[in-house]
Amino acid sequence: MTGIHQAAIDACYDQALKSYNEGGLPIGSALTRGDEIIAVGHNRRMQQGNPILHGEMDCLQNAGRQASYRDCTLYTSLSPCMMCSGTIVQFKIPRVVICENRNFGGNEQFLRNRGVEVEIIDDAHCIDLMARFISESGQLWAEDIAD
Amino acid sequence: MTGIHQAAIDACYDQALKSYNEGGLPIGSALTRGDEIIAVGHNRRMQQGNPILHGEMDCLQNAGRQASYRDCTLYTSLSPCMMCSGTIVQFKIPRVVICENRNFGGNEQFLRNRGVEVEIIDDAHCIDLMARFISESGQLWAEDIAD
Repeated sequence: MTGIHQAAIDACYDQALKSYNEGGLPIGSALTRGDEIIAVGHNRRMQQGNPILHGEMDCLQNAGRQASYRDCTLYTSLSPCMMCSGTIVQFKIPRVVICENRNFGGNEQFLRNRGVEVEIIDDAHCIDLMARFISESGQLWAEDIAD
Repeated sequence: MTGIHQAAIDACYDQALKSYNEGGLPIGSALTRGDEIIAVGHNRRMQQGNPILHGEMDCLQNAGRQASYRDCTLYTSLSPCMMCSGTIVQFKIPRVVICENRNFGGNEQFLRNRGVEVEIIDDAHCIDLMARFISESGQLWAEDIAD
């Protein structure tokens, strides 16, 4: 499981960087089952003018219909907002790996209270990319989190 | 405001019925600002194989980017699940009108605890349509709420 764990963290960063290079918000996500990444996604607010497509939501959309998420882990480059946290609980995703929660956070306890296993990684690449985006595009970031 | 209130309730039912007639889950939604319906939507799990497009999410997607939802009301034919409730809180939508919560509910208190004004209507058309769908397609309904 070590290989897939790091591969999913790397996929989150790659998706975030892809979105950044497209002029979008640099937040990426990956959904794993066993030793397979079954979907990836990234924020598409700018690319599609779509406010619900945060990285995690885009990833779950790309995964399509699943009979169950009980054996899945959702990876995300940035700590999930209340929309994405509510979705994790609603979809009964048992485990979430957060690449970083220095640039945004606050729903980790909500997730744990609802029985979700939460692992926080202090991934330097994700921290740096998100911090760079916030300093460059603070207004867009405020819009994305309805701040 | 009475005219728009009933018009938005009717739009939820119309969207739900449209989805039912497409072979989808009969759950519809409308977003209002002042005396205008700015977007409508319905569940698209079956129509697009998309698990995140509950009625409320589809409506918010259709509304596109909004600078603020502070002066908006979200109407929904059925009480919002945890994904949609988390989204309402994240987007800072101050008021939700629920056409019915007999066939599904449970997140009303979560919304109220987060400062959302919740109004519940016992709309007979919405109750009957959703009850009919659940009796006809219980397995699909279970999938939609990850039951």
